Amino acid sequence: MSAVLLEQEKLSVVNVGVDMFAQSVREAGGSVLQLDWQPPGNGDAELAWLLAQLVGDANDPDCAGSRVDRANQLAVERIVSSQPVLTDVALHARDVWPDMGRRLLHAGAPVAWRDMCGPMQGAMIGATLYEGWADSAAAAEVMLARGDIGFAPNHDYDAVGPMAGIISPSMPLFVVRNQAHGNSAYTNMSEGIGRVLRFGANGPDVIERLRWIETVLAPTLKHAVHEVGGIDLKAIQAQALLMGDEVHSRNAAATLHFLAAIAAPLAASVLPRDPVRETLAFIAGNSQFFLNLSMVASKATMVAAHGIEDCSVVTAIARNGGTTAIRVSGLGRRWFEAPSGNPRGLYFPGFKASDGNPDLGDSAICETAGLGGFSLAASPALVQLVGGTVAEAIGYSRELQQVAVARNPALSLPNLDFIGAPCGIDIRKVVDTGIQPLLTTGIAHKEAGVGQIGAGIVRTPLPCYTAALRALATQLGVD
Amino acid sequence: MSAVLLEQEKLSVVNVGVDMFAQSVREAGGSVLQLDWQPPGNGDAELAWLLAQLVGDANDPDCAGSRVDRANQLAVERIVSSQPVLTDVALHARDVWPDMGRRLLHAGAPVAWRDMCGPMQGAMIGATLYEGWADSAAAAEVMLARGDIGFAPNHDYDAVGPMAGIISPSMPLFVVRNQAHGNSAYTNMSEGIGRVLRFGANGPDVIERLRWIETVLAPTLKHAVHEVGGIDLKAIQAQALLMGDEVHSRNAAATLHFLAAIAAPLAASVLPRDPVRETLAFIAGNSQFFLNLSMVASKATMVAAHGIEDCSVVTAIARNGGTTAIRVSGLGRRWFEAPSGNPRGLYFPGFKASDGNPDLGDSAICETAGLGGFSLAASPALVQLVGGTVAEAIGYSRELQQVAVARNPALSLPNLDFIGAPCGIDIRKVVDTGIQPLLTTGIAHKEAGVGQIGAGIVRTPLPCYTAALRALATQLGVD
Repeated sequence: MSAVLLEQEKLSVVNVGVDMFAQSVREAGGSVLQLDWQPPGNGDAELAWLLAQLVGDANDPDCAGSRVDRANQLAVERIVSSQPVLTDVALHARDVWPDMGRRLLHAGAPVAWRDMCGPMQGAMIGATLYEGWADSAAAAEVMLARGDIGFAPNHDYDAVGPMAGIISPSMPLFVVRNQAHGNSAYTNMSEGIGRVLRFGANGPDVIERLRWIETVLAPTLKHAVHEVGGIDLKAIQAQALLMGDEVHSRNAAATLHFLAAIAAPLAASVLPRDPVRETLAFIAGNSQFFLNLSMVASKATMVAAHGIEDCSVVTAIARNGGTTAIRVSGLGRRWFEAPSGNPRGLYFPGFKASDGNPDLGDSAICETAGLGGFSLAASPALVQLVGGTVAEAIGYSRELQQVAVARNPALSLPNLDFIGAPCGIDIRKVVDTGIQPLLTTGIAHKEAGVGQIGAGIVRTPLPCYTAALRALATQLGVD
Repeated sequence: MSAVLLEQEKLSVVNVGVDMFAQSVREAGGSVLQLDWQPPGNGDAELAWLLAQLVGDANDPDCAGSRVDRANQLAVERIVSSQPVLTDVALHARDVWPDMGRRLLHAGAPVAWRDMCGPMQGAMIGATLYEGWADSAAAAEVMLARGDIGFAPNHDYDAVGPMAGIISPSMPLFVVRNQAHGNSAYTNMSEGIGRVLRFGANGPDVIERLRWIETVLAPTLKHAVHEVGGIDLKAIQAQALLMGDEVHSRNAAATLHFLAAIAAPLAASVLPRDPVRETLAFIAGNSQFFLNLSMVASKATMVAAHGIEDCSVVTAIARNGGTTAIRVSGLGRRWFEAPSGNPRGLYFPGFKASDGNPDLGDSAICETAGLGGFSLAASPALVQLVGGTVAEAIGYSRELQQVAVARNPALSLPNLDFIGAPCGIDIRKVVDTGIQPLLTTGIAHKEAGVGQIGAGIVRTPLPCYTAALRALATQLGVD
């Protein structure tokens, strides 16, 4: 679509959509303002028709779109009013889920052993060794391939885990209660950086650290959490957004706030000094320690927004290393999946894009709650990683607002003059605009155990949203 | 000065300087672009002539201006290469300065008892009681008025203190060593907020807290500092600039970083648990705790840049509650003073501008090192306090760069796409442009002991800089 301004001597064209037309004008010496635009549903007439019927109509409160609008409003109210508080540390996951049995939880949508990416297979082997179910990596692999050990997505347990995201029965869990809505969510604990299970490493050093987390870190933090009567994670997330974190790939300020909350009570506690010192030093030396807590706070928030009839808000985005999958509030436990993209990022010295695993982990739950990519305006340092400017960081938050239902006044973005972060991804808006929700992310090596090789940003695949939209339309009787 | 663009039908004028001309064009229906401009030296012909002779000339390396340029380059190199490290806590100021005697140090340039503002008199009375030199406020006042107790500016001892800035012989000091240049600087410790000595309060609660600082906080921090082998304050300042602090009026991130540096070592120490808990809780609950440390790090930095022959860089800005005074690197210990302005700020409920004391304290040392007002781009939250936007915060840092010699690559400002903070205020540039260096500041009630009643920003008075410029010209044989 082109509009030619004829009043002036030189050809001036505003071209909307397909770039081809603009190019020919440019070649003829004319000036062109190219507007990015694509038709609703990306040119798919059927999708465009469904979309049109899913738009709310103020004069018809009973139409499908108006019902969706009302449901989304309720979802946003639940997100905004959520109060995720770290209320406990469970010393073992099996204490929280007595029916867990010999099962390993993992990031993303369900995936068979043979389809798991390298880092997830490596992490599964490590967890099997840590549990003592096998005494060698080879034996563990045989058991896992044979089906001796069950798998399930973290999300099916209201849990989340970064990267491979493995939670095994002996691992301790952070327990977060959404005080406003009464639901809970769970996550494992950060292992720090370097050779770690979540990137697929499974050597003796990795298992030893997991044991330290189970026997030293978790009991110490459990004591601290009880001592202070719970830690308000949303307040920390809100503060961190004022301090350069987007609270997904950067958690430097949030981690320090968490440390400040537990330092004095721990120092005064009856616990022996060594575990207290080790715990405080571990957190002080790991600026991403709060990531798991930001994830679980986001999960506790989004669980409260899940299960609202007719609601088109995304309540989970999760990547198993092969696919990116989303859940939608009104569409139950069903995952809408598509192959994951590879992040655009900065690679550590010695690594390149082709070494990278497709996007991995449950951490995108942060974006569903308005953090991470949606709050990039708060964290220009991250955009600088991929060669971007402050203006680009702000641009991402502005762009992503277009696919959000509302703004979250509790999550204020300084660089947008303190307006709220985008709140509630509406699949209708994603399909309508073609704007693919953006995640901030770490990049895993595709081979098990190599670890993190970079950090960057990635767009979630559009087919997740179009498939979900079709399902919602069907459910609403729209065709 | 006006330039009229005649090619178009309607009168279009670019007016430079005096607004009167612009107004008449506007009244005649023309359009005007008004450029703020004022002649060098603000129209003072003698000053303009001095300025002209103090400009460097690449073809004349021996001219006065070229000598100043070289001296300033050296000053900037010393600022940029400085490494202020907290190496010790002195349990009593008299241990550091055995010749201190019965003397009280204070903020700003020298000032007689009768000329001291309310908060400073109140703080002097409090310090006299704390030292046990008098047993009532009335008795203390008599002694102070009679001259029984000596006064001296902190800066004469390479020390700094916020607000009234009183340092008495029994107070503990932070000892900071500039590892790159071998000089040291000193400051007192933050008392937190509320009724505090630095705002002129001197009741029993205030004295008791000072005692706690002397007997609990200081020995505990001394232990921590020795345990970790010194704390790199510049690294903390640099990190804090990436986290929403300008490290003068906002120190939230810097305080958390300091806490993280001492928490684990203190938790593991042989010290009893109570002082450790009290110390960590005091710092965790006081987001401005790092202010004194940012000030002393800045002082240790600027001492290294002081005393360079021919140098026109400002090495101290200090306010005694009546005057704002500056020192210049090439002009020795002389102060150039002018009456302080009142801050433009946000007042706490129940207070108004007329309750405020003129600008007070040594904390403007931060600005001489490129922090505070010069780094406002890092801290939009502070500009929001005075009704400003992010764009204004960035604008201040850009504007103030015009009076700086260079940029400090060690102090990176995210919102300026990570370029360095302004470095080295050049009095020539201040007088030439008329841009008055801007400070972020707390606002004290003018009556002793009421405390802080607001926060805001204030411009330092131009006459400080013009007087210094005249002195420099004389010293360089320019007239």
